[in-house]
Amino acid sequence: MAGSTFGKNFRVTTWGESHGVSLGCVIDGCPAGLPLSSEDLAPYMARRRPGQGGYTTARNEADEAEIMSGVFEGVTTGTPIAIMIKNNDQHSKDYEALREVYRPGHADFGFDAKYGIRDHRGGGRSSGRETAARVAAGAVAAKILERLGISVSAAAIFAGDAASAAADGDSVGGIIECVAKGVPAGIGDPVFDKLDARLAAAVMSVGAVKGVEIGDGFAAAKTRGSENNDEFEMKDSAVTKRTNHSGGILGGISDGSDIILRCAVKPTPSISKEQHTVTRDGEDTTIRIGGRHDTIIVPRAVVVVECMVAITLLDAMMENMHSKMSSLEGFYR
Amino acid sequence: MAGSTFGKNFRVTTWGESHGVSLGCVIDGCPAGLPLSSEDLAPYMARRRPGQGGYTTARNEADEAEIMSGVFEGVTTGTPIAIMIKNNDQHSKDYEALREVYRPGHADFGFDAKYGIRDHRGGGRSSGRETAARVAAGAVAAKILERLGISVSAAAIFAGDAASAAADGDSVGGIIECVAKGVPAGIGDPVFDKLDARLAAAVMSVGAVKGVEIGDGFAAAKTRGSENNDEFEMKDSAVTKRTNHSGGILGGISDGSDIILRCAVKPTPSISKEQHTVTRDGEDTTIRIGGRHDTIIVPRAVVVVECMVAITLLDAMMENMHSKMSSLEGFYR
Amino acid sequence: MAGSTFGKNFRVTTWGESHGVSLGCVIDGCPAGLPLSSEDLAPYMARRRPGQGGYTTARNEADEAEIMSGVFEGVTTGTPIAIMIKNNDQHSKDYEALREVYRPGHADFGFDAKYGIRDHRGGGRSSGRETAARVAAGAVAAKILERLGISVSAAAIFAGDAASAAADGDSVGGIIECVAKGVPAGIGDPVFDKLDARLAAAVMSVGAVKGVEIGDGFAAAKTRGSENNDEFEMKDSAVTKRTNHSGGILGGISDGSDIILRCAVKPTPSISKEQHTVTRDGEDTTIRIGGRHDTIIVPRAVVVVECMVAITLLDAMMENMHSKMSSLEGFYR
Amino acid sequence: MAGSTFGKNFRVTTWGESHGVSLGCVIDGCPAGLPLSSEDLAPYMARRRPGQGGYTTARNEADEAEIMSGVFEGVTTGTPIAIMIKNNDQHSKDYEALREVYRPGHADFGFDAKYGIRDHRGGGRSSGRETAARVAAGAVAAKILERLGISVSAAAIFAGDAASAAADGDSVGGIIECVAKGVPAGIGDPVFDKLDARLAAAVMSVGAVKGVEIGDGFAAAKTRGSENNDEFEMKDSAVTKRTNHSGGILGGISDGSDIILRCAVKPTPSISKEQHTVTRDGEDTTIRIGGRHDTIIVPRAVVVVECMVAITLLDAMMENMHSKMSSLEGFYR
Repeated sequence: MAGSTFGKNFRVTTWGESHGVSLGCVIDGCPAGLPLSSEDLAPYMARRRPGQGGYTTARNEADEAEIMSGVFEGVTTGTPIAIMIKNNDQHSKDYEALREVYRPGHADFGFDAKYGIRDHRGGGRSSGRETAARVAAGAVAAKILERLGISVSAAAIFAGDAASAAADGDSVGGIIECVAKGVPAGIGDPVFDKLDARLAAAVMSVGAVKGVEIGDGFAAAKTRGSENNDEFEMKDSAVTKRTNHSGGILGGISDGSDIILRCAVKPTPSISKEQHTVTRDGEDTTIRIGGRHDTIIVPRAVVVVECMVAITLLDAMMENMHSKMSSLEGFYR
Repeated sequence: MAGSTFGKNFRVTTWGESHGVSLGCVIDGCPAGLPLSSEDLAPYMARRRPGQGGYTTARNEADEAEIMSGVFEGVTTGTPIAIMIKNNDQHSKDYEALREVYRPGHADFGFDAKYGIRDHRGGGRSSGRETAARVAAGAVAAKILERLGISVSAAAIFAGDAASAAADGDSVGGIIECVAKGVPAGIGDPVFDKLDARLAAAVMSVGAVKGVEIGDGFAAAKTRGSENNDEFEMKDSAVTKRTNHSGGILGGISDGSDIILRCAVKPTPSISKEQHTVTRDGEDTTIRIGGRHDTIIVPRAVVVVECMVAITLLDAMMENMHSKMSSLEGFYR
Repeated sequence: MAGSTFGKNFRVTTWGESHGVSLGCVIDGCPAGLPLSSEDLAPYMARRRPGQGGYTTARNEADEAEIMSGVFEGVTTGTPIAIMIKNNDQHSKDYEALREVYRPGHADFGFDAKYGIRDHRGGGRSSGRETAARVAAGAVAAKILERLGISVSAAAIFAGDAASAAADGDSVGGIIECVAKGVPAGIGDPVFDKLDARLAAAVMSVGAVKGVEIGDGFAAAKTRGSENNDEFEMKDSAVTKRTNHSGGILGGISDGSDIILRCAVKPTPSISKEQHTVTRDGEDTTIRIGGRHDTIIVPRAVVVVECMVAITLLDAMMENMHSKMSSLEGFYR
Repeated sequence: MAGSTFGKNFRVTTWGESHGVSLGCVIDGCPAGLPLSSEDLAPYMARRRPGQGGYTTARNEADEAEIMSGVFEGVTTGTPIAIMIKNNDQHSKDYEALREVYRPGHADFGFDAKYGIRDHRGGGRSSGRETAARVAAGAVAAKILERLGISVSAAAIFAGDAASAAADGDSVGGIIECVAKGVPAGIGDPVFDKLDARLAAAVMSVGAVKGVEIGDGFAAAKTRGSENNDEFEMKDSAVTKRTNHSGGILGGISDGSDIILRCAVKPTPSISKEQHTVTRDGEDTTIRIGGRHDTIIVPRAVVVVECMVAITLLDAMMENMHSKMSSLEGFYR
């Protein structure tokens, strides 16, 4: 698509830059009849704010998400839900020095090559701030999933040593694991829209993510089939698996066990150490990036990953509703 | 989408099952004016055939890809290119014993849950055979990329010990690395259609792939920003990078250096060792999968990964052509 | 999209030209569990064949549609259904004289401008023959709709005088009306995917169609609100309308009454009368189009219009299944 | 798609209801480098405001469109452009009486059937007010087209007698014609994304439109091929047509002459005459619709039709840029 819309049925379009007036999202295709208010969004927005732990920046982002449409008398109407988040604490002058240089590890150079122009303030459209809009949309998806008996939960399972990195004006990364419980078997389409393919795209689209794996992931490559296969067995008259090396997805379709995904978050590119780079005019130079930057973004990225997984699962579950003739007949006859 | 179509501009739709009459693909949106014949497809199809190395199956698949439309007097017309591949060597009776059971590690159970019905012969739609259609389409994409100065090349960088696994009626997996050279900076869209997100989806959609990483991937999570950032410098009056930890993509947009991707291929699920499973009627049972199965599929998957990367890059490069007003004006005025 | 795929849930991709080896379609997203065989397609294909009435061409097109995939043991599996139709009776030499000229009323010039190349034989990709693939797909959609209690039926309500036109080496057009009965209220989305907008696109995409109207259509523009509004009333405890000026669609959403659509088919462009035109090299010239051409294509277009309406309705009905939370909860809990 | 997004390359998503806080649109895929400010939008917004002529309502809608993102230092950056329009003059209490009834000629009943819930204030999401967001987006598209040498202009060519209808508490409709000049040949894709099919969908999606025709439209159905065909001839060394019965589109592809489209606008459904209808509880009743309603909406709809045509043409022109290998090679080599 044109890059700023995700999903086929529960479609999320985000807009806004880190240093624009505000940013937001439009959710199109949200089913009608869901009780919804900005109070549902607040806990998710709070988890994304700067100031998580001691090594994320002190920017004061109120992050109040306001619902502008699509909700009437406290319930979704089925029409697009626009959510707006004001940018409160923008120190544009912090970035003036960066107008003419390309920061290593950032998309500055790519943007210039692509568009011939870029908003040099903060990360512009590629800033982590953009994820605030995704989280607002993900909060809505999560509420729907909850009503369908599904929970999605992410957490950092590895983080570099932020304290010693901060002391050096450097940064670290980490690994986030996300588990979705209660997803029924049959979700996802074979071939190109495999559920794991959709999840990989969703999570890889989060800035700073450089790898995604499902179940045993890369470790599976080093095992044998007899070790990696999850044997089926009956338990309480239901088909279950004895193990879950597959991470809940087989052949691109959910198999009824927990969906387990992990992603790698690279260290924050903005560091205060001196780095070599070039100017827009093509001259070698060095920079020290000032301003306020997270030594580690993993704590803030956790809810973003969780939200992308929620949006993807919901989208696929809506898709699945017309897979069988019996479903169509049950709905329409 | 509905699962069997990939791409937005160079759109590939595949059809067919491993034990149907034939299988094929339709490429919609292929630019007109490309010299094309089945001879262009043959080398790619050959790389995918069984019998690669000593531990892939001996099924005799001629894999001749025939172009049915979209080419006139040896050149593409811009209209859909349909490619058909006949299934020659199908031993359906090998699979009769599997009609009523779910094979561990396969999508059988997921298909049943989703559709209430499944083609039990071979892997049906989730069979590796389906990838023959993708490779045919990828061969076309690769030819176009070549004309644009871009090469895509994949290879196995790790493979489990197939010999000892074969002796045990077991299977092994591996890791495939794919490198794309010559991709200009600026390809990919920020936010959701990041180039690495598209590539992750493309490669994760290949059966048996359980993980994807770009550049340093998961290893990046354990480094510092000062180690992971690729510093820019001028060389021959062009912006280049001193290192390539990013794997050629920053903020979802190509940065002009080699695009490096790796994916993990799990061990082949079909093994002849006895496995515990359940029948469609919900009874515990055990199975030994007979028939001809690859001890390791990595050698055959290499060209599939390469083709998915080629299709994705071409699709994104076509998308990029209308990113700037100067491009529209140059084209139309 | 890239032009050769229609639909979002029940997706139809067609391929093939009038003078290629064959042509066909791929239906992706067809629900599993539908009994299907080529016998279901035959009646529709027969209605499309040349030789309808006395003034359509005598080309011998067997039009046997063969199902290549997506059906197992007589029932759809939910995987893509590929249908192939062989081109039997192609008199390519009839067209040799037309290689270097642009036929008035045809897309020849447009194709050349767009692609820089064209298949001059017959209408190539813009030939009416391409519609054979649409009809095959429409036959599948119609069968599903039938099972949901919906019938779609089209007929010519006006046709020009073909006899006197044939005598003059000229051609005529006509108007086709299509009625869909049994469509429940609530189908279609407000704003851009209004049901009437989708139907208009579907029908206007049929070659030679130059206008589409719903309900009273253009006549409504000349009435008053009090005449055009359909008043509601209760009948047998159900909401019904006293009249149906709206043609079954209000605000883009079906209202439960018959959906009535009409389209205008222009006279066949290929006539044997002498016409002024230009050559590809930019020289004025005249042509007389030989070969076999329909004096009137309306009789053959009827089933094509019917099939496009069927495909569109089914696609929208599948979309509608996840409009409400109660539907998701009913499906998943 | 999910109904509130239009387009493939220049993608417009709208949100908001007539009686919500505000409404707006997000334009994704707008090329970078276009000078843009709300001053570009103002003339278009003004043409849409109530109070055009004497028979449109006196609602005071300031209709100031504010650009929230995607523009930096006065130029588009290529990132999504969010435009917000505040709803100023909402008399919600005017609609309280309509909470429990279905207004004839409106989508009320359809919404209830689809979503089980509806915003009864004004037309909610199906209100004409929603078109304000489309016009804002269309203004951007029109500015780009202008820079490519293309002008789009619409006007009412027929309008019912509004004076006598207003006196009766009734309403009238009309016919709008839109002409696009300067569109080069080759725009549009054969088969499903024919340019006329896209235009038909775009215009039919405007509320109250019940018919669309291109060129001679329905009148063509009553002519002969010799009368309807546009003969080609050379003029000033360029291929031109002697007539333009085709309305600028042949076989779904633009032919280089003026694109001419007409649409029928039904009379405004909201009239103050008494009408028979039913309540949500299924009881027969009558209503007189109070509040402020347009006797004729055609004058306001003109700019909406123009904008939808502009958006569609731009989207198709962006699509066309990668139709030929020579275009790809020219761009990348």
